[in-house]
Amino acid sequence: MGAVFGKNIQFTIFGESHGVAVGGVLSSVPHGVKLDFPYIDMFLKRRNHKALYTTKRQETDSYEILSGVKDGVTTGAPLAFIIRNKDAKGKDYSELERLVRPGHSDYPAFVKYNGFNDVSGGGHFSGRLTAPLTFAGSIARQILRDKGIEIYSYVMSVGNTACPSEANYAKELQSADFPVADDGYKEKFMQEIENASQQGDSVGGVIRCVIKNIPAGVGEPFFHSVESEMASMMFSIPAVKGVEFGKGFEITRIKGSEANDCYTVQDGEISTVTNNNGGVTGGITNGADVVFQVAVKPTPSIFKPQNTVDVNTKTNEILQLKGRHDSCIVPRATVAVESGAALVILDLLGGK
Amino acid sequence: MGAVFGKNIQFTIFGESHGVAVGGVLSSVPHGVKLDFPYIDMFLKRRNHKALYTTKRQETDSYEILSGVKDGVTTGAPLAFIIRNKDAKGKDYSELERLVRPGHSDYPAFVKYNGFNDVSGGGHFSGRLTAPLTFAGSIARQILRDKGIEIYSYVMSVGNTACPSEANYAKELQSADFPVADDGYKEKFMQEIENASQQGDSVGGVIRCVIKNIPAGVGEPFFHSVESEMASMMFSIPAVKGVEFGKGFEITRIKGSEANDCYTVQDGEISTVTNNNGGVTGGITNGADVVFQVAVKPTPSIFKPQNTVDVNTKTNEILQLKGRHDSCIVPRATVAVESGAALVILDLLGGK
Amino acid sequence: MGAVFGKNIQFTIFGESHGVAVGGVLSSVPHGVKLDFPYIDMFLKRRNHKALYTTKRQETDSYEILSGVKDGVTTGAPLAFIIRNKDAKGKDYSELERLVRPGHSDYPAFVKYNGFNDVSGGGHFSGRLTAPLTFAGSIARQILRDKGIEIYSYVMSVGNTACPSEANYAKELQSADFPVADDGYKEKFMQEIENASQQGDSVGGVIRCVIKNIPAGVGEPFFHSVESEMASMMFSIPAVKGVEFGKGFEITRIKGSEANDCYTVQDGEISTVTNNNGGVTGGITNGADVVFQVAVKPTPSIFKPQNTVDVNTKTNEILQLKGRHDSCIVPRATVAVESGAALVILDLLGGK
Amino acid sequence: MGAVFGKNIQFTIFGESHGVAVGGVLSSVPHGVKLDFPYIDMFLKRRNHKALYTTKRQETDSYEILSGVKDGVTTGAPLAFIIRNKDAKGKDYSELERLVRPGHSDYPAFVKYNGFNDVSGGGHFSGRLTAPLTFAGSIARQILRDKGIEIYSYVMSVGNTACPSEANYAKELQSADFPVADDGYKEKFMQEIENASQQGDSVGGVIRCVIKNIPAGVGEPFFHSVESEMASMMFSIPAVKGVEFGKGFEITRIKGSEANDCYTVQDGEISTVTNNNGGVTGGITNGADVVFQVAVKPTPSIFKPQNTVDVNTKTNEILQLKGRHDSCIVPRATVAVESGAALVILDLLGGK
Repeated sequence: MGAVFGKNIQFTIFGESHGVAVGGVLSSVPHGVKLDFPYIDMFLKRRNHKALYTTKRQETDSYEILSGVKDGVTTGAPLAFIIRNKDAKGKDYSELERLVRPGHSDYPAFVKYNGFNDVSGGGHFSGRLTAPLTFAGSIARQILRDKGIEIYSYVMSVGNTACPSEANYAKELQSADFPVADDGYKEKFMQEIENASQQGDSVGGVIRCVIKNIPAGVGEPFFHSVESEMASMMFSIPAVKGVEFGKGFEITRIKGSEANDCYTVQDGEISTVTNNNGGVTGGITNGADVVFQVAVKPTPSIFKPQNTVDVNTKTNEILQLKGRHDSCIVPRATVAVESGAALVILDLLGGK
Repeated sequence: MGAVFGKNIQFTIFGESHGVAVGGVLSSVPHGVKLDFPYIDMFLKRRNHKALYTTKRQETDSYEILSGVKDGVTTGAPLAFIIRNKDAKGKDYSELERLVRPGHSDYPAFVKYNGFNDVSGGGHFSGRLTAPLTFAGSIARQILRDKGIEIYSYVMSVGNTACPSEANYAKELQSADFPVADDGYKEKFMQEIENASQQGDSVGGVIRCVIKNIPAGVGEPFFHSVESEMASMMFSIPAVKGVEFGKGFEITRIKGSEANDCYTVQDGEISTVTNNNGGVTGGITNGADVVFQVAVKPTPSIFKPQNTVDVNTKTNEILQLKGRHDSCIVPRATVAVESGAALVILDLLGGK
Repeated sequence: MGAVFGKNIQFTIFGESHGVAVGGVLSSVPHGVKLDFPYIDMFLKRRNHKALYTTKRQETDSYEILSGVKDGVTTGAPLAFIIRNKDAKGKDYSELERLVRPGHSDYPAFVKYNGFNDVSGGGHFSGRLTAPLTFAGSIARQILRDKGIEIYSYVMSVGNTACPSEANYAKELQSADFPVADDGYKEKFMQEIENASQQGDSVGGVIRCVIKNIPAGVGEPFFHSVESEMASMMFSIPAVKGVEFGKGFEITRIKGSEANDCYTVQDGEISTVTNNNGGVTGGITNGADVVFQVAVKPTPSIFKPQNTVDVNTKTNEILQLKGRHDSCIVPRATVAVESGAALVILDLLGGK
Repeated sequence: MGAVFGKNIQFTIFGESHGVAVGGVLSSVPHGVKLDFPYIDMFLKRRNHKALYTTKRQETDSYEILSGVKDGVTTGAPLAFIIRNKDAKGKDYSELERLVRPGHSDYPAFVKYNGFNDVSGGGHFSGRLTAPLTFAGSIARQILRDKGIEIYSYVMSVGNTACPSEANYAKELQSADFPVADDGYKEKFMQEIENASQQGDSVGGVIRCVIKNIPAGVGEPFFHSVESEMASMMFSIPAVKGVEFGKGFEITRIKGSEANDCYTVQDGEISTVTNNNGGVTGGITNGADVVFQVAVKPTPSIFKPQNTVDVNTKTNEILQLKGRHDSCIVPRATVAVESGAALVILDLLGGK
């Protein structure tokens, strides 16, 4: 199934970190949607924001829409877009063609593509691919917003620091570079990142994503449950190692009587009293918010010397990465998680 | 995509808990495979085993192969099979057509199918559907076994009791009714289940699944990573609320320098020194065992009175379930997890 | 994609001519459809009707619905059904395992499945598979009928005898064993068949299928035009060698000024004056009837000696078929064409 | 499935005639293929060639590869490319937004996209889309060529003039602007086109395509026969109204004894004596050349006044097209047919 996601909206993704451009094609976007570019730009900006260098703010990636839009309105034809790669200036990647970086795709990709894959900056496996994901996802998100469905996410933990509070929906969260439930924790999280950075190391964290106002009855039992589709997308985002819904792994430690979300009627509306199942039971939405957590591993690019191998000579070597790398991608990953979620939900809703 | 899984082997699943039969169709199974029925039966037996009543052992579900097999050998044509439902004797489900069970699919299904869905025993959403999953998965598993790829799983925790040790591959694990890493813990787990049962309550747990001898280079970056495909399948298994690979959520609490799995060469073979990433980096296998954990929530069927609603009258009601229910499906779920994993891996390997 | 058809309704087909049963699964049939069994039986009867033996009328195939239906109404869960094979009594097919029948699938299947395929009665390639196609198609057809969309077809030619007249929609056509536009031609067609039969030979013919009251705007430009989807289905029906829409190949012999279907407005309704394009332009329905012709080749099973090879010894041999074969499947094929068309249209309409 | 073709190679197509660019993405192209650009250019040139103006030869469309290729060699990552539209200079299409052109997609597209579709030059429905089809198809074709599989096609008829002879494979045919079996007929065909052009009218024709050296055993019985897949692709090419294999519709007029392709063994090789079935029986290749014919209707763009309607006011109107249009696209269509065929065969071969 290669690089195509979805049944009702097919999203095809392409590009390499240091190639000509990254981009995508939304094959079945609804017609007549007047694109809200400032809204889309807001999300692309968040994706570009690097945690440690808040002073020097990156510019938004500039995209070019190639088809499917006329006078800013979708035509219904495939919507193709590209985001050109700047500063792909001839860095020397010859070392990385020999020495595979631990924790990265280099070695599996070397085996899969028999060494023909582009390693520069991770090639097609780069976090750079979250740019087209965010662009396409933001279009899906706009369509969902127009139905009253809102998506937000926030960082629950960075390394060993976890914020105990929960965040309710707030417009600010959608535009926040570093969305958290409790602003007091943003500093604590930054400190974790700073510490890791100074050691030439990196940290990961956990993101919670919430989808509000999604109707009950969305999803398929086998094999396309809301959880299946959402997890499938989330595990396409680089560095994601775990996905759980509602209480997730924690739910295994409580009794059924505590875990079951009882129903109640208020003003003729049926709803659940609690939401331990993250808004999904039997694979289908039950009317509560869809809530899930995503585990993002520490950035594999670190500046400590690491043991690795030369894939050509098959000898043991020491790898010492240089340059400048984000020592924590968790804040930036929030918008990728939200964007992926938007594509999943729009697809489950029939693409309309 | 309804009830069809896979790109290279399409597995279509069907049936309801109390309907005529459950079953499935493997559309693209390789030809010339002499089915190992005792091997398949071993897994169906495990699925039928109920934790608390080990004395009175259930018989294996008896299946009927309808097509695709000649003289016990696959022909390459679609392999269809059914497992008839016995004891679907006219229990009275009229109450469940009114009162939706918390934690079950009843309410979302009522909304999705506008009340036309079959609620008896959970209908199409029942754990009963893991029988065709296990049958089809065991065929996939046999094909993998013939390539040297072995799959096993074990229960890591039940409720609040967790077993610290890890299990290595052992033939016994594949046939164990209640696979655990340390036999001393089987009793502790049974005690947790017994306690919950006596309170009319239920418990969940965590299962670890391991796939041995899978080659490096399997999987697709976007959107069909090994993690995406595996999680998609796991979240189709009733009661699964979380899936994580390798250290999973725990990996967010360590540094990149600890999380990265360094490479080494021994006897000309490249391998990782550690396996914190569960055998997958960049969405593609790296040659280490594929290792993942699955969170299984407490069985939603409990015997304590629960608050719920009458979906027809939209009034608040108390639901009191009767009859006999398994107060922990975790041991039985192990074989469903292994079977689903087998289908995913065979599909990723091209169905051959 | 193996034996699965459709995006919105996935229809999985299985079975062999002389296996236990043929059948299928409709994965995403709408819920709440009260099945009209006499309507479905009418079509299964037509499929069973053998042109030359009108006196001794065959019984309808008896089907068993395994899932997805409760009290005769669809639940929305996968609808699985089987039609058991009777009289698969141990005929001796050993010769056919050596000598491949010209015009049949025997040789290509032998190569594809390395000799493991079931050759008895054509195995999975048998016209017998049109039974599940007809059953599933008739359910789709009932759903379309309830929207006012009617499908009918008729035999335009048998061998060298062609009927010049066109048939308009008539209820009788839907139940006719041998639907024709002009009853006078039925006898002429029967004569062609009789002659061929007496020579131990066979004849083919052309079928026209018409879909009435389909709205404009159905279909996709690339790659899922109405013509693409319809042709793809038609070429899955055994013995079909050509598919054309509207004037089809004939349209290449007229000028654009004659071929273009001009538009007109009557009572505020836009319609085409002519229908040379068979109701589809740019791959999308234009509001006129969808009209297409299907070429059905002469039944490959004939009783004249034929040159063939022994696939095992790779020697030239003479094949002399015995038994009783239909010397013209064209009349029976009409209902398969209509049923396949119903599945295609329902799928293009979103499965609802 | 919107604008995505194929199971093993997913080809996503996009673009509008007068938009920024047309292009496509090959999601799963094999790695390590050194692209033969002169070979690809040869086919793009053919597509650009306009029958009547042979003196002033068009330049090849210039494409830009955005991803999936490094140093001219495929990496295995999605191969995205664009072909920018020149001369999309602000022609006035306001009339076409009111008056739908008979024989074109204008009206069905107006209904499907509720008037939001781009009508300029046919928008996404334009023959312009055969440019990305040809580019992607030529890559597939190169991969097939390296396996010894060659594809060629030729014009069998234009309007009422048909060339009786058959063409065998010849390198020249692959580069011919106007491929024919008998050069004497090229002039006759040109005369037909010239005559139509002078009358402000247009003509169509029939193209035969041949695939040489394809192995036996390729294809699936249901629902993905070679004929199903090939016809599905052909009917995505604008103006195609019929597809037939081997003798096609003609086979309905001969007896089974003449139609069946008998087998023979020569030098231990099994082959068919005749090829009336176009190399496909039971939906699977039988080792003979795959041969099919495609009916291309007369270009709908003509300069005679035509009756049509104003879709906004719903009034009858007369449409008088201006500008310069190809009065016969048949010669140019040959390379689109060959390119589409290459994608289908590569996909059926597993994408490798």
